[in-house]
Amino acid sequence: MKILTFGEMMLRLKPTGFERILQTSNFEAAYGGAEANAAVSLAILGHDASYLTKLPENPLGEAAMGALRKFGVNTQNILRGGPRLGLYFFEKGNGVRSTGVVYDRAGSSIATAKADEFDWKALLKDIDIFYFSGITPAISSELKEALHKALNYCKSNKITVICDLNYRGKMWTPEQAQKTMAEIMPFVDVCIANDEDFEATLGIKAFDGNMATGIDQIESFREGMKAVTEKYPNCKTVASVLRNINSVEQSDWMAILYTDGKFYETPTHNVNVMEGVAAGDAFGAGLVHGLVKKLDPQETIEFAIAASVLKLSISGDLNLITEAEIRAAMQKGSNARLSR
Amino acid sequence: MKILTFGEMMLRLKPTGFERILQTSNFEAAYGGAEANAAVSLAILGHDASYLTKLPENPLGEAAMGALRKFGVNTQNILRGGPRLGLYFFEKGNGVRSTGVVYDRAGSSIATAKADEFDWKALLKDIDIFYFSGITPAISSELKEALHKALNYCKSNKITVICDLNYRGKMWTPEQAQKTMAEIMPFVDVCIANDEDFEATLGIKAFDGNMATGIDQIESFREGMKAVTEKYPNCKTVASVLRNINSVEQSDWMAILYTDGKFYETPTHNVNVMEGVAAGDAFGAGLVHGLVKKLDPQETIEFAIAASVLKLSISGDLNLITEAEIRAAMQKGSNARLSR
Amino acid sequence: MKILTFGEMMLRLKPTGFERILQTSNFEAAYGGAEANAAVSLAILGHDASYLTKLPENPLGEAAMGALRKFGVNTQNILRGGPRLGLYFFEKGNGVRSTGVVYDRAGSSIATAKADEFDWKALLKDIDIFYFSGITPAISSELKEALHKALNYCKSNKITVICDLNYRGKMWTPEQAQKTMAEIMPFVDVCIANDEDFEATLGIKAFDGNMATGIDQIESFREGMKAVTEKYPNCKTVASVLRNINSVEQSDWMAILYTDGKFYETPTHNVNVMEGVAAGDAFGAGLVHGLVKKLDPQETIEFAIAASVLKLSISGDLNLITEAEIRAAMQKGSNARLSR
Amino acid sequence: MKILTFGEMMLRLKPTGFERILQTSNFEAAYGGAEANAAVSLAILGHDASYLTKLPENPLGEAAMGALRKFGVNTQNILRGGPRLGLYFFEKGNGVRSTGVVYDRAGSSIATAKADEFDWKALLKDIDIFYFSGITPAISSELKEALHKALNYCKSNKITVICDLNYRGKMWTPEQAQKTMAEIMPFVDVCIANDEDFEATLGIKAFDGNMATGIDQIESFREGMKAVTEKYPNCKTVASVLRNINSVEQSDWMAILYTDGKFYETPTHNVNVMEGVAAGDAFGAGLVHGLVKKLDPQETIEFAIAASVLKLSISGDLNLITEAEIRAAMQKGSNARLSR
Amino acid sequence: MKILTFGEMMLRLKPTGFERILQTSNFEAAYGGAEANAAVSLAILGHDASYLTKLPENPLGEAAMGALRKFGVNTQNILRGGPRLGLYFFEKGNGVRSTGVVYDRAGSSIATAKADEFDWKALLKDIDIFYFSGITPAISSELKEALHKALNYCKSNKITVICDLNYRGKMWTPEQAQKTMAEIMPFVDVCIANDEDFEATLGIKAFDGNMATGIDQIESFREGMKAVTEKYPNCKTVASVLRNINSVEQSDWMAILYTDGKFYETPTHNVNVMEGVAAGDAFGAGLVHGLVKKLDPQETIEFAIAASVLKLSISGDLNLITEAEIRAAMQKGSNARLSR
Amino acid sequence: MKILTFGEMMLRLKPTGFERILQTSNFEAAYGGAEANAAVSLAILGHDASYLTKLPENPLGEAAMGALRKFGVNTQNILRGGPRLGLYFFEKGNGVRSTGVVYDRAGSSIATAKADEFDWKALLKDIDIFYFSGITPAISSELKEALHKALNYCKSNKITVICDLNYRGKMWTPEQAQKTMAEIMPFVDVCIANDEDFEATLGIKAFDGNMATGIDQIESFREGMKAVTEKYPNCKTVASVLRNINSVEQSDWMAILYTDGKFYETPTHNVNVMEGVAAGDAFGAGLVHGLVKKLDPQETIEFAIAASVLKLSISGDLNLITEAEIRAAMQKGSNARLSR
Repeated sequence: MKILTFGEMMLRLKPTGFERILQTSNFEAAYGGAEANAAVSLAILGHDASYLTKLPENPLGEAAMGALRKFGVNTQNILRGGPRLGLYFFEKGNGVRSTGVVYDRAGSSIATAKADEFDWKALLKDIDIFYFSGITPAISSELKEALHKALNYCKSNKITVICDLNYRGKMWTPEQAQKTMAEIMPFVDVCIANDEDFEATLGIKAFDGNMATGIDQIESFREGMKAVTEKYPNCKTVASVLRNINSVEQSDWMAILYTDGKFYETPTHNVNVMEGVAAGDAFGAGLVHGLVKKLDPQETIEFAIAASVLKLSISGDLNLITEAEIRAAMQKGSNARLSR
Repeated sequence: MKILTFGEMMLRLKPTGFERILQTSNFEAAYGGAEANAAVSLAILGHDASYLTKLPENPLGEAAMGALRKFGVNTQNILRGGPRLGLYFFEKGNGVRSTGVVYDRAGSSIATAKADEFDWKALLKDIDIFYFSGITPAISSELKEALHKALNYCKSNKITVICDLNYRGKMWTPEQAQKTMAEIMPFVDVCIANDEDFEATLGIKAFDGNMATGIDQIESFREGMKAVTEKYPNCKTVASVLRNINSVEQSDWMAILYTDGKFYETPTHNVNVMEGVAAGDAFGAGLVHGLVKKLDPQETIEFAIAASVLKLSISGDLNLITEAEIRAAMQKGSNARLSR
Repeated sequence: MKILTFGEMMLRLKPTGFERILQTSNFEAAYGGAEANAAVSLAILGHDASYLTKLPENPLGEAAMGALRKFGVNTQNILRGGPRLGLYFFEKGNGVRSTGVVYDRAGSSIATAKADEFDWKALLKDIDIFYFSGITPAISSELKEALHKALNYCKSNKITVICDLNYRGKMWTPEQAQKTMAEIMPFVDVCIANDEDFEATLGIKAFDGNMATGIDQIESFREGMKAVTEKYPNCKTVASVLRNINSVEQSDWMAILYTDGKFYETPTHNVNVMEGVAAGDAFGAGLVHGLVKKLDPQETIEFAIAASVLKLSISGDLNLITEAEIRAAMQKGSNARLSR
Repeated sequence: MKILTFGEMMLRLKPTGFERILQTSNFEAAYGGAEANAAVSLAILGHDASYLTKLPENPLGEAAMGALRKFGVNTQNILRGGPRLGLYFFEKGNGVRSTGVVYDRAGSSIATAKADEFDWKALLKDIDIFYFSGITPAISSELKEALHKALNYCKSNKITVICDLNYRGKMWTPEQAQKTMAEIMPFVDVCIANDEDFEATLGIKAFDGNMATGIDQIESFREGMKAVTEKYPNCKTVASVLRNINSVEQSDWMAILYTDGKFYETPTHNVNVMEGVAAGDAFGAGLVHGLVKKLDPQETIEFAIAASVLKLSISGDLNLITEAEIRAAMQKGSNARLSR
Repeated sequence: MKILTFGEMMLRLKPTGFERILQTSNFEAAYGGAEANAAVSLAILGHDASYLTKLPENPLGEAAMGALRKFGVNTQNILRGGPRLGLYFFEKGNGVRSTGVVYDRAGSSIATAKADEFDWKALLKDIDIFYFSGITPAISSELKEALHKALNYCKSNKITVICDLNYRGKMWTPEQAQKTMAEIMPFVDVCIANDEDFEATLGIKAFDGNMATGIDQIESFREGMKAVTEKYPNCKTVASVLRNINSVEQSDWMAILYTDGKFYETPTHNVNVMEGVAAGDAFGAGLVHGLVKKLDPQETIEFAIAASVLKLSISGDLNLITEAEIRAAMQKGSNARLSR
Repeated sequence: MKILTFGEMMLRLKPTGFERILQTSNFEAAYGGAEANAAVSLAILGHDASYLTKLPENPLGEAAMGALRKFGVNTQNILRGGPRLGLYFFEKGNGVRSTGVVYDRAGSSIATAKADEFDWKALLKDIDIFYFSGITPAISSELKEALHKALNYCKSNKITVICDLNYRGKMWTPEQAQKTMAEIMPFVDVCIANDEDFEATLGIKAFDGNMATGIDQIESFREGMKAVTEKYPNCKTVASVLRNINSVEQSDWMAILYTDGKFYETPTHNVNVMEGVAAGDAFGAGLVHGLVKKLDPQETIEFAIAASVLKLSISGDLNLITEAEIRAAMQKGSNARLSR
């Protein structure tokens, strides 16, 4: 099974240690982006994963490509050219200080790409699964158009479409997101909806916005998930991560898979959080892994949430975790001690 | 309103990460000092803050000045000359190992300054608030004399005097501190007294010395605060931070403001501590901010304690925190998640 | 004498050591820009120097401001707002590998500023010297317009105008530069023209483009300098740096000042180059220093070239060099040994 | 009293911060090994401690020796020569990701040393205490033979023999360990047995293998300790550390000393774990300290467990902790605050 | 054209900056090996390059693979398993102190691989060029045997064989090397012979061993090259790099290509050396590039030497240099200045 | 033969890379001091070397001791106590910017030690060679007095006295130095006099102060050396380093030994300088090595200068160089290439 993920990749610049952007004289560089992260996870898990974006013809574009290739992602179809690589500054919080992000992604090569630069017939040839997140159509109207063309091709060619709704309030408003997603969802086979995604992108109320009590609202989430499949009958599978975020350093995580009318729920992981980014992409990749490997739904969702909480222990956007480590984390408690 | 803070500034040298002084081959450099820290906080909060000290005419003196100017503190009246910049080695603890400090501040330019080097008439011209801590008179008898002259000028010119008692057992004994403070307190309008400050500097019993149960002794603190105003009627406002220090990494913080005969108390912040220094200076600056902005007493003390606990998330002595972040921390729980 | 410099400031990101952008996982951060660099040099030399630009309202904008304030530059009139801080990636060369730069400055806050955001009457009030480089009008047509308004104000108010022609081939073509400079030069009192600047920005042939033989072409430079003053009679002073660049690490530098019809030339410095950027801005600041301090022309140009070659020993864009160090470097050979 | 410890020393390579081996471009270097770590602890505590191993004649061998000498260990009898220094890659875990180790110790100078290279008569002359761990005989059959010779010499010369059983599943199987230890234990006077050591090395059941509930199984541990002394009557003293490992970052530690038929148990330390390696060696050294200083059994075991939990706050294999710090940690709770 | 290179890959550990192994607490990690380096150069130059070795199934093996994939090398046929990754410690010299290397490669996965693990029919299918260095047969007799099988397959299938003689005095003696090479050379089509390679591996005298005067001995080199083709008529092309190494930091480099009875010689590059390793592999890759692209012999050898001297400016074993940069370095002198 | 060296040891703090003190946020830590450096060199060369000073009872004192012990120096007689460890800030120059030092050594434990704290009878028992530099008596009058007592003991007990005159203009004036040295020289058997030492400490003219032409003044040096032995007949041996310092990065070094009325002169080393400190101490140790090993005078001085120029390639104050490396450097030119 061949998987293609499609989106934007950025250079992430993070001050050393717990320094603030304002005070640092050193940024750690990492490359990532929601769909690129998912592709890397899938490649590490042994899948044939390709990534599609547009990158500038400069050393930063090369470095971004290299970061994917290093872990086995096929980058051959990535478009090259355009003005720049998007980037974001990432400031890790701690204690009562929140983690912060300064985006600097406007005008990137992918954001200024034209819809007709993507030759979907060639790009999706042999592809079995097409994966993207809600960030992709939020980038530009050209990308939205490109995405529509891709989805039409997928529908005609029986390519499974997986969408992580992934709402970004700094990129568009709920109104814009909902309008766009209403056009996209009819093509989606599997949908990942977390936290505010339900309401902001689908207009479905499932979560009250209080990050400290996500798991406590489980019943409301279940209803929301069901509502998604009712509103979009093509989408037979919905997966959600639920969290009680107790502090920057500490939270509880569990997940629900709703598929073919049934709920599958994981135990709760109480997690120490080292870096709280890109865990959703790790979850998405875990989910795709379960689908491709035809794991049963309960195992699938347990695999996905374990992959996701492991990401919280990793520096950078990429979830550098093996299948064996995910399996170990699924058996909570067994892995706290150094084996030697 | 113009604020002048007066004290000693040092170079702080901290081993990388959690290394001990004994093993490190790399010290992170930062510049700070109680009153300099307060000045920086105030400048970042938008106040017209000046700092007064004496710094050597060498690159270390320049760097110390630059560290203040960077954040907008007025350094024009700082005296230059003398033998050296004081410094201290800071070793961050963790687990059951305490944080440690090796002071190397003797013989510094400010410690060897003469009282008559300070032309208070010029230095305090246009100043509305004069801020110092108990460290300043502990440095040398010349500085104590200089401080007296400043306080007399303040009294004659209706400049508000704010003192953070800030007892340092490595600098003087309780007997010495009490003798000096008995002469200083009659000039003080607003006083900050934490933990052992009550007894060590004022001879007032308010705290039994057990850092793990500061908040549990709240009633005793309240009595101590009242006793301060009774002993020194000029001092109508007393502020205190109360803590239950559970471990190097974890503690509970709250604060009390006693002003015009009434108590104002904050909720308790349960805090993850990244670096437990200079939080008192952040508190002092938050308090001054409330006074200058004429916030009501309850808002003032909540602002000050939020500023203080935010400092625990920052590397270095300076509290690089914006007003918006303090406001957010005042609404506890709302800021654990990355906004993007 | 008050000096205002006007231009763009960027975040510079440089891989650690001699690593390439393609391989690094760590960028050293520094803030700079031609006119900001000049302002910092002037502030360190004791002048009352202000800087004008537009910076975004985010931590990067704050950090850029702080970098200037740290060294005493007045930043009070800097505009705030707009989308982003421009940045550039700087890759230090060595051996037969050239130093490289990837610019990412399009769409910055200053590049998208409108001409009418600059209230020149207020901004230039009390200013004696207005300094900018050829980069400023190359940024946008709005900035070109803003600059014209500033120059008109200067002319009416007898403010000395100093322009470092500073041609940037990555920003505009010689045609565009010449068209613009033809309108600007009539306002310029002192002009700095190096290497390709003569031809690219003024259409005057003075240099054949071979960086290895700049000094060897001294006669041609002299004629070019004279030609500038003939073409633009308002411009009575022209200064040029001439170089024989032998390798990335090694070059010969000297400078010529042509003023009131006479040439003043410096000895040649044979220099070991640690970092070959921003030496032109250091030169410009040295020249301004000589003018403001009314040094005689020979001393002025010797001071300027010494300031410039000292920059080649400094990391980052800012020339962190004292007047005493420049004076020592003017007496070549005397400073090779450690004094202790 | 002179102490000799005998074993293997390695170069430890740890990725910076929380990076994985797979992603790092920087390894922090440290030198250590169970018995070397114990020797360093003892030297820091003021004992006359020597270390015996074989190290290659290259800069890595020199560096390993230097790391011991730095803290006062006598290295004069260390053999030099052989092919290489063993090493191990250490990857610090966090959250749900376990700490991991990649050993690369095969073929080291000590592992390829011959039994007859050790002249025990000379090496053990004047020695009062001989200390080794179960790792030493697991390294090679030659080392096992060398150890036997040493133990025979000790028995004949009344040298106290202390063995930390220290089972390593990556080095040998329980069957191999039990066979060897059955031959060694008759020589052992004091034995340290933790967790799986009882069963894997002695065939005595004391612990069910669940690291999360070690302390909960205290009764079973007590029986195991008694069983050791019954099976090996020469061994009159057994010490054990019991742990409830709640997560990579958090655990509870206590210890039991069984000597002359009586149990001495410590309070439980609830500990924040920064780096969970070599705490057992720190415990062993603490125990030896108590024996040498003739502390009473209760003080001895409290000293040892405090030394052990302090190690959890230190980077690297060596427990860089003073006696005063151990004494302070014995009085739990008193040391959370910065003294200054 | 598909190229396969075959050899050993190692983890290189280099102390930070100019530190010695003895003093460092930090090693920079890089992965490389003669043939792996060549493969990376070829992939960056746009060729279809594969690499063959055997790597352990652990994170170090993964990291080594990733380092190749990052730059586009095909790693699909790399064998996995065996005990360890070889490594070497690299200490950069300067001034009068030489660069030093501590090898620790014995017992690696490739060194312990069996000849029959390599299925050459599958591995060499579709391959046009087979590239290896003299290091490969020096590793083990099994590898020598494997190489022979590969060479036989190449001969039968008209695969071009390229060998960089690459003598390593720490791996075998001239006698051993000559014996082995006498069996290998009859299969070699293109041979690279530098410095002591002539005598040590082929028994042909071309160089007197004085690294300071390699270029001065050009006539002797020419005779040696001719002698190679006479002794081994199958080998119609010989390439050599000649150097005058003036100091650790400074040397002169030129190269000769002898092909079809004619000499082609490059101008001499006077080079500043940042890191003097792996330049030979860069040369080999440049040579292969010329052959594959059918550049004329003069252009080929100029391309190869330019690629080689550029490597001297790069950190790590991999020559991260583009074709454009090599072209620029071929036009010496034109690239000393920053283009912006 | 046992050697004791006596002086002050300091913590050296050096900004990372080529950063200035003014701009750095990171200081590299190293410990050293003229006589401590010599002791380390001697210990590495296999001598029984002890060091005497006074160090504070804090982690910095421990670290300083550890730095010596690491390389085998005997530290058992070092006095402990007093207020602080002296330190100095070291800023590496490059190009036209000189290396700079900010001393902060006043009031250190050794500087405040009393003469009677040194029990010379015990300290010099079994000592054969007593080594100190002109820095020691410059530190305080108490140390001068202590030194006198030591010298008297040496004279009575036939301990060879070696003095590196080592003039420090930042510590005392030529007048003070000459007065003191006139009292000390009658006890000195072997004296090292470099550059300004002749005139500043002995009042003998041998060098005109121009560091660029030291070697050019060789005749004058020879006369100076002879004059020393004539003025102080007890001193039969004088050694001097002569240099032509061409730039911060480049210089020529040679040395002369004058002993028993004859001159022995070395060839000139043309050296690339990485870090120009403590080369004099390395020279002194090399000289002592020659004396102890009874090398002939020519070999002795060649050994000493080679040890000295090797120091220029080492980071930190300690000359981490083996005898084999010194021997190799004595055969100039042979060591430029990597041996592998």
